[in-house]
This record gives sequence, C-alpha cells and structure tokens, in this order.
Amino acid sequence: MEILPGTLLQTIQSPADLKGLSKEQLLQVCNELRQYIIDVVSVHGGHFGASLGVVELSVALHYVFNTPYDQLVWDVGHQAYGHKILTGRRDTFYTNRKYGGLSGFPRRAESEYDSFGVGHSSTSISAALGMAIAAKHKGEDRKSVAIIGDGAMTAGLAFEGMNHAGVSDADMLIILNDNCMSIDQNVGALKEYLTDITTSQTYNKFKDDIWKALGKLPVGKRFSREMASKLEHSIKGFVNKSSNLFEALNLRYFGPIDGHNVTKLVDILQDLKKIPGPKLLHILTVKGKGYALAEKDQTKWHAPGLFDKITGEIYKKKFDLPQPPKYQDVFGYTIIELAEKNDKIFGITPAMPTGSSLKFMMDKMPDRALDVGICEQHAVTLSAGMATQGMKVFCNIYSSFMQRAYDQVVHDVAIQNLPVIFCLDRAGLVGEDGATHHGAYDISYMRCVPNMIVSAPMNECELRNLMYTAQLDSTQNPMVIRYPRGEGVMPEWKKELQEIKIGTGRKLKDGTDIAILSLGHPGNFAAAAIRDLRTEGLNPAHYDMRFAKPLDETLLHEVFSKYPKVITVEDGTVVGGFGSAILEFVAAHQYHAEIKILGIPDHIIEQGTCKELQKEAGYDTNGITMAVREMMSSKIKTTTFG
Amino acid sequence: MEILPGTLLQTIQSPADLKGLSKEQLLQVCNELRQYIIDVVSVHGGHFGASLGVVELSVALHYVFNTPYDQLVWDVGHQAYGHKILTGRRDTFYTNRKYGGLSGFPRRAESEYDSFGVGHSSTSISAALGMAIAAKHKGEDRKSVAIIGDGAMTAGLAFEGMNHAGVSDADMLIILNDNCMSIDQNVGALKEYLTDITTSQTYNKFKDDIWKALGKLPVGKRFSREMASKLEHSIKGFVNKSSNLFEALNLRYFGPIDGHNVTKLVDILQDLKKIPGPKLLHILTVKGKGYALAEKDQTKWHAPGLFDKITGEIYKKKFDLPQPPKYQDVFGYTIIELAEKNDKIFGITPAMPTGSSLKFMMDKMPDRALDVGICEQHAVTLSAGMATQGMKVFCNIYSSFMQRAYDQVVHDVAIQNLPVIFCLDRAGLVGEDGATHHGAYDISYMRCVPNMIVSAPMNECELRNLMYTAQLDSTQNPMVIRYPRGEGVMPEWKKELQEIKIGTGRKLKDGTDIAILSLGHPGNFAAAAIRDLRTEGLNPAHYDMRFAKPLDETLLHEVFSKYPKVITVEDGTVVGGFGSAILEFVAAHQYHAEIKILGIPDHIIEQGTCKELQKEAGYDTNGITMAVREMMSSKIKTTTFG
Repeated sequence: MEILPGTLLQTIQSPADLKGLSKEQLLQVCNELRQYIIDVVSVHGGHFGASLGVVELSVALHYVFNTPYDQLVWDVGHQAYGHKILTGRRDTFYTNRKYGGLSGFPRRAESEYDSFGVGHSSTSISAALGMAIAAKHKGEDRKSVAIIGDGAMTAGLAFEGMNHAGVSDADMLIILNDNCMSIDQNVGALKEYLTDITTSQTYNKFKDDIWKALGKLPVGKRFSREMASKLEHSIKGFVNKSSNLFEALNLRYFGPIDGHNVTKLVDILQDLKKIPGPKLLHILTVKGKGYALAEKDQTKWHAPGLFDKITGEIYKKKFDLPQPPKYQDVFGYTIIELAEKNDKIFGITPAMPTGSSLKFMMDKMPDRALDVGICEQHAVTLSAGMATQGMKVFCNIYSSFMQRAYDQVVHDVAIQNLPVIFCLDRAGLVGEDGATHHGAYDISYMRCVPNMIVSAPMNECELRNLMYTAQLDSTQNPMVIRYPRGEGVMPEWKKELQEIKIGTGRKLKDGTDIAILSLGHPGNFAAAAIRDLRTEGLNPAHYDMRFAKPLDETLLHEVFSKYPKVITVEDGTVVGGFGSAILEFVAAHQYHAEIKILGIPDHIIEQGTCKELQKEAGYDTNGITMAVREMMSSKIKTTTFG
Repeated sequence: MEILPGTLLQTIQSPADLKGLSKEQLLQVCNELRQYIIDVVSVHGGHFGASLGVVELSVALHYVFNTPYDQLVWDVGHQAYGHKILTGRRDTFYTNRKYGGLSGFPRRAESEYDSFGVGHSSTSISAALGMAIAAKHKGEDRKSVAIIGDGAMTAGLAFEGMNHAGVSDADMLIILNDNCMSIDQNVGALKEYLTDITTSQTYNKFKDDIWKALGKLPVGKRFSREMASKLEHSIKGFVNKSSNLFEALNLRYFGPIDGHNVTKLVDILQDLKKIPGPKLLHILTVKGKGYALAEKDQTKWHAPGLFDKITGEIYKKKFDLPQPPKYQDVFGYTIIELAEKNDKIFGITPAMPTGSSLKFMMDKMPDRALDVGICEQHAVTLSAGMATQGMKVFCNIYSSFMQRAYDQVVHDVAIQNLPVIFCLDRAGLVGEDGATHHGAYDISYMRCVPNMIVSAPMNECELRNLMYTAQLDSTQNPMVIRYPRGEGVMPEWKKELQEIKIGTGRKLKDGTDIAILSLGHPGNFAAAAIRDLRTEGLNPAHYDMRFAKPLDETLLHEVFSKYPKVITVEDGTVVGGFGSAILEFVAAHQYHAEIKILGIPDHIIEQGTCKELQKEAGYDTNGITMAVREMMSSKIKTTTFG
C-alpha cells in the first residue's frame, strides 16, 4: 500500500521548494510531515518519538539555512527523518533501516544534505566546529549548525566541544533540543539545571529576594517599584549572562523558546544567522509530539516497532510455543537474583536502562542500580572506583558504545586489575541500527588488554553462569561478557547457577578431520550447520570455546592434535579477534593446521535484519556449512622447504 | 650522596606523625618538603613543577583527613610526590620512576595511601564518587577527595563525573587545583571562566552596575549605600550560587582561596569535612611554587630532567658528533614544510604542543595549528569535521591517550572513511612514565578498524615520507603513523620528501632460512641483531614492512615462499598486533612456517628506561639475536595427520 504525502509535502523535492513557500504555509508542511512520519513508521518501523519532536525545527532549519551549503549536523541522528524526507528522500523513505535501503541515521554517502554521519551521541558540536573552522580558513560564508539533545549534552565530548567553541570565533550555532529525555528519562545535574533555567526558578527566586529586600526598606511601595524596574534591566542582563552555564563557557545563550512554534523558530533562526561567532539556542520540545500515546510514554515509543496508527496497538509476534527470552532480560533478571545473595553487587548503565533491562534492578533495588546518563567514560571509571572498595559492579554498556570508554577500561580497570564486570550488550551485528551500532570490534580491542578476561555465552544458561562466575570473589580480574541483541535459544532458561572455570571451553561433539571452534551465540549456527552436514557424510567436531581470553589451552591441544582442519566462528571482526587468538596459539605451539576464520569481514557493514547481515558476513548456518564443504573438498596442503 | 630531609620532615614516617604537630609547625614541614623535592628531583629527575605547587595542599590534606581510611585521589598524579614522601616513601623516593623503583604516579600496588592509580588525566571525580557511593552502601563514614587541576577539568570525563556527583548525595570533596596550566598553558572557555571568577570581574562588574543604577535614583547618597548594603547580602549569595558553573551542576562551591596558605587550607578543609554531600573547593596555586625559575617558565620545568638546583642549569648530554633528532621534532618541522606547500593542512594537539613539537607550527602558523586542551575526543571529531571540508588534518595524540578517543576514531573517522592523519606519538614503551603511558595497544586497536591504514616509520626519513604520503590527495583513507618517544637514528634527516605507496614495505636484505619482518623503529634493533649474528654464520633476511595494514602481500608471498622460519618484531603488544596480522595472512594463504612474534608481552610493564624495558620485553637487539639463535637451533617441525 503506497503511503501518500500531503498536498504541500508532495511538492517538496528539496529544500529549494520549501523556501518557495510563505512562512504561514510552513504550519501545513509541519502537519503533513508529522503525519507522513507516523504513516511510514507505523507500517515500516523505525525510530519514532525523536523525529516527531523536531518536525518544526527540521522545517525551520531548511527554510532559513542554505542547505546543503550551510551544514546541519544532527546529533545521534535518529531524529533526522523529517530532514531526510525534506531533502529528496521522501519517496525512498519507506526503505529506512532496511537492507540496501536508507540508513536510519544521516550518512554522508547517502546525501549531500547529510553533512556528518552520526549514530552515537554528542559528536555534533565538535564536528560542526571543525566545519566552521575550515569554512573560515577557506574564506567561505558557510554556516554550521549542531542540533543536540539534552541527553547527548551530558556526554563529555559535548562539553569538550563547547570548551573549544567558546574561545573560537567560529561561526556556528548550537541548538539544544531539550526534551528531558535520552531513550529513557535524562538524568544528572545538567538535566536538573536545564529544568531550572527553563522554569526560570533561579531568576524568579532572585527577583523575589530583591522585592523582599526592597519591601523592608523605609520607602513607599511606589518608589520601590520604580527602583526595581530600573534595577531589573541590569539584573536581568546579569542573570541571563552570568547564571548561565553556557554563557560561563562563553557561548551566547538564547532561549528557552518553544520548539513547536515553527514561525517563531524561523524568526529567531533568521536573527541568529546574522550574529557571528559561537552561540546556543535552547529550544523546548516534546518527544513524540503530535502522537498522543508517544508523548505519554516516550521510552516505549522511542522505537516501537510496527503499530496500528489509529488504535496505537503495537504489533507483537504471536507464538504457539514458549519462546526463548532476550539475552537482555536474562541479564536483567539474573543480576537481581545474584544481587539478592551478594550485597557487593551493583549495576551501572549509561542511559540504557530499558535497552539493557537493568531497569528491572533499578525498580527493585534503586540504590544499587544506577543510570548515569550518556556518560560511558564515567560509567567505567565510577565502576573502577567502586571496585576498589570491594564492590562487584556489572557495568552494562553496548559493545559499540564501549568504544567511548576504552581508555577507562585500560587505564582505570585493567592496569589496576580491578574485577569490574563488563556486560557488553549488542555485541556482534545489531541489525537495523547499522554501521555505527554494530558491536564488531570489542573482541579485538579487549583481547589485547592485559589482565582482561573476554567471554561470550552460547546461550541463556551460559550467560547466567558467566555472570555467576564473574561475581565470585575468586574472579579477581576484569571480565567481559559479550552477548548479542535479541533472543537466545532456550525457552527453559532459569536453570540453577553454576560456576564456569575461567578459561575453559566445552567440547560439544567429537568429529572427523575437521573441528569448529565457536565463540558465543554463533555456536548455535555452527551446531545447526553440523546437523545439516550430517546428511552429506561430513562430521565436524564442535567446541564452544566460551573464552577468547584466556584460551582453553587443554582443549586446543586436543583440537590441534586431532584435527588438521579447523574453522573458527565469532560475531566479531576477523581482524585480531577470536580467530586470531587461535592463530597465535597455533604459532606459539607450532601446530600445522589449515585454519579458516569466519566472522565479520574487515569492511563497514550497513543495516539490515540480523539474519541478512550474518548471511552477508558469512558466519550464519549456511556460511559455516559452505566453509566446511569447501575445506573438506581441498587436500591437506603440505609445504616443503628445501 | 645521601639527601637528608629537614629536621621535622625526618620525623614523619606516616601521616600519623604529621597529625602530632601543631598547625603552626606545618609551615616548616611545607618548607622542608618543598626543599626535599627540589633536592631529590634535581639529582634523580622526575616531574617537578606540579608537586611544588601542591606542597601545602598535600600537607593539609594528610593533616586533616584520616588517610588511608579517607581516600585521596590525585588526578593525573605527577603532583603526588609530596603525598608519597609523607606516606612512608621518603627514603625510597630517590628510586622514583626508576626500573624497579617507585612509580612516578600513585599506584595501588605500591601503597595503601594510593587509593587509585592514575597517570592519564580527569579520572579522579568519577573514581572518588565511586568510592563515596560504595562507602555509603557499606555504612562507612569514609571521605573521598578528588584533587584535580584546571587542565584536567577540561576533559569530558571530568564533566561527566560532576554531572553525576551533582545529583548524588555522596560525601565527596572535589578540590580544583587551579594553576592555569596543563603541561603547557591551559586553554579553552573553562580556563577563561576560571580566570574570570578568580578575579571576580563578574561580581565586581555587577556591583558596579548596581551602584550606578542606584546613583541615578532620586535619593541621597546615604540612603543608596544603606540600601546597597542590605541588597548586597542577597546579591552576593545569588552571584556566588547562580553565576557559578559548578553550582549550576549542583556542587556546593567554595573559594577561590590561596592554595599556598597551609593554615588557611587546614581550616577550610576541617570545615568542609563536616559538610555532607558533593562540594567543590577552588584553590589557586602556582606551578613550580618556591623555585623561582620553575615559576617563571612552567612548561620547561614541568619535568626538566637533572639540574643544578643552585644555578638552575639543566644538564644536557654533550656529544662530539651530530646526533639524530627526536621523532617529535621531525614531525614538528616536517608538518610546517608540508603546510607551507599545502594550504589544506592543519595540525591539532590535545594539550601537548611542546611534547609533540606541534608548537613549532603553532608559533609559525597560529591559525592552522590548534591546541584544544585535554580533549582527545574533541580533537578527533573536530578533525573529522574539518576533513569533511577537504582539510588534511594531522591530529597528533600520544598513543596511550588515543585510547581516550577510540570511538571517535571508529565512529567519526573510519566509518565515514575520512582521510584524517593520526600521528601517534609515544608509541611503544615510553620509559619512565610507566604502565599508564606505554603506547602498547594501538596497533591492535587500530588494525581491527575497517578503512584504517596503520603505518610506522623505521627512521626519520621514513616518518617524513609517510607524512608526505598521508597528505596527498591520493590518500583517501584515515591513516595512523605511529612513532616512539625520543631520538631516531639519522643525524642527516632532512632528505627530499618522497611518496611511499600505501601498503608497501621494503626488503632491506636477503638471507638464509630465516627472515625478520619488522614494523617501525625496532627495525633498527633487528638490523643490529643481524649484524651481530653474522659472526655466528647466521644470515637472516630483513624486511621493514612499514604497514601493519594494509600488509604488503607481494613481499609476504616472497617471504613465506622463501623462508621456513620468520620472526616478527614490533613495539606493540603481541596480542592482535602486527605479528597477528602476519599470522592471519599465513592462515589465509595456507603457508606453513614457524613464526615467532616479538613485541610487548601481554602483561602490564612498569617504568624504567626505554632500554631496560625493551630488554624486559625481549625485542631489543639482544632479544632478537637470541630469538634467531633459538629458532635456528630447532628443527623444522612437521606434523602428520593420520
């Protein structure tokens, strides 16, 4: 069913068409744009609330600025649907986040209007400042605009960007899109501060104090008012300037203004365009604006999946049989189970309580499960500080976001050998979020760090046992437990907890001539491949290695003594990962074997379903099957030197 | 020659002895402590100015707080010499930064008074907050104190820590040690802001405005003053609270006060100890305080090397022959040479203009060479933003500090395939700075990132040519050029610039039976080893591979066709690095060879001279010699499967 845009939106092929409209017509454009986003996302899926919240801003920006010559940098970028629809991608927008389709985020390769690729938060100020400095150097009158949410503003990178912008004379505008939200509620002192200046409590409190002080003076009411009025100008100027966090960083501060009043936005943007130097406009918006249910439960409607736009029913797949749980929920329930018995356990998440399911623990044990906001660096060093006091901290961070805290892992945790437990959620290919969100590199970047244990469970039960093992006092090293987004394989997952000896894998089956060594969830693909291959008379052995570091050397000696051909399987990059660890073992012990490494290839993988992407990467069941066939059809190669 | 501490300092074996003194005696302790630091550092070397700046603070903290039960977290930590001397390490302090001696930074394994290991900046707030949260959970009345400089405060991590601390009720004190310095002058809006509140311009300006406004009112002078006095209380309270960046983040702000008045420090710390919740004390200090030359040129005296404490002469080694330059200076001169011809070139450093020698360009081309402060994340994303506009940015970051910006490398540069040039200074073992500063992991963590070129020059000429190549328009990928701290090998290094084809190595010599593949500067150790081995009749081939990625596959096919034994040499971890890249090639092409990987072993290496540490790691000339001997004495192993 084709989704038709409204009559005005139909006419907009690019921002040039938008500029041909009167300011009054923009209201209709906003309504139609909002409706179009609802229509498409309800049927095709995607992020929802964030883009609804910036409909007016998207229209106003493209109306006022000379895009793509002027450059818009959308922080995070899942709010850029309106921007995409207005910049020539309306008719392909239904392919959003699909394999081969549009990216769910701005992407330079996709459009000249996407000035900077995004996905992770808080990059926009630095990137836009870089653009502005370059423009100045080239003598171009090019404007740079960073649009950043209050959630993203909590990350250190945003602060670093402002610290530099404030002393530059670069011609850039920061738009603080304040909706009090990350995916979950925004948290932290900055959020409190923004709420404070928004409601002007500080200023009002001060005015009250002045009035009170004046009231106590021995003069008539009339005079006090006259004086207060005269004072008010200097006071107000002072309050706006000096009480302001952003002014303290030398950014001219404007606002807060209503971010859903498109004509007002147009007016102020036109004014700001003429003001040189770095400046910040604070706008207030509502995530999910215009779709009542999304306004009401903003976390649920951040990316709701497919839904009936009329009834608001979010479609769920129905199953006849019990289904395996999400790894996330297994984490969320198991940490509570462990924490109830071990008083030392804490849970930390940087702004992903719902996504990680740490929310279960936050609800049940609010003092021991903390959301620190989009602050991955802080989350890790905070965990390290707690670990020095004997706490067992489960620091749950998505694999790709952990890249944000790499030095903290090395410097604060590993060098001091503090037993922090890193639960790396969204490890491997994550599907529709695409290139920026794939957890492709963690095995490599964690494995090279001394003292680090790197593990991955093949199923729910293994995840629980690794978590159990990690919090034991006998585990005295930092430990990574990486697991993918989504469902595992065990409908009956609540088994009794058991210790797993660090650095031990399991032999799942013996075989002939060839062995498969798998790490983590893709072990299930290997098991399926082995079942498929049986009919062809091929009989690979299968080892679930569990640990990329330390390796189970006893098992590996068995493997390389018995099998001349070995395939390794992991959902991480093939460069420097688990497969390479096996090669290092083989080289150190001078085994000769033919080894094939399956995993994420060394190039950028875009979006699609996990299945599509795993197929593309070649480590799904079929990929493993083919690799076994191919290896078994070749002869064992011998090289002779002479 | 033994260095004797003063008469009071002699009696202080631990903070308990300090607590036995009267407040008035602390002045003498400070003088003796300062003198002792000067005496020891002038003879044994080490960081200098930072510790002199916090003599009074160190004494006051240990006098007031119940260390080690109460926990001091020294940010960066090179200012903790006084702390070390006061906490039982006076008599071993002369071993500071030496092989097997005391670490130049606080280190948990070294003393119970070192509550948190440091080295990189800006970790202290998060760590101390973690300790405070744990203390509260355990019901302990334990204080946590983070001592952080204004330079370290610019890094995002510090902001993230404050953002969380401000909404916690944790009992912690942040001491902002404001001396306007990083190693070089501190930069950025925050620094401007601190200068502003220090000189109270804002407040004074406001008072002036009020007085002016009052002066215009139709009342007598006497009345105005009376009213102003009544108003002043509320105004001052307001100004202190609301005009303050830290109060905006909900931290109670105290100060600024003179950080060299030890009795005043003791008084205020005693007061603050009783105030619950998160709070910040702003103290003003002078880096190098008490040693006139160090006060005058703070960058030079940050870590001056050995010097005559009376004359202030900094000893320099004298040589008869021309010596090779530091790689840093080669970088510093070459970027200017390139930038004079290529208008697109920019240089960026996060707070290391002197250390990286980018200072040369900052002096000569101030608009095109930027110090962004201790903001590695921002430095990288800013570079990415500039690269989108066609700029060729040399982003110079120490290898271990680049860990701070890993996500920015992956997410903002590599995924978008922007041709940013990362000059990773201090790659490999760095010597006296020790564990936190070794550039051990970059080959591994960079090599696993798609699109990334990873290179290392074997000498000055190669560094220049790699830099030349990186800025050519034909180089369209991000590129790492990693090089070590200190001198190269070529006194005559100013050769004409030549392009190096990306992914090509060089064969330095043919050989028999065994080949050495080296990456970067350790190629010189390999060359020396080969010269040594000649007398024993051993004749290894030598290839300077130049690139860990992409590999020179043509050369490698030659190597593995000709040589059954191969040694790889790199100054990076043996886990997932250059050696592993070679193993991946060998596995992919099914070569059989005996391969030994030399590099930094997979455990934490502490401090020492570079030579001592390279020896310990086993990749110095002697280590390579032994490895060749050992390999050549073993038979070629063949495995047969049956």
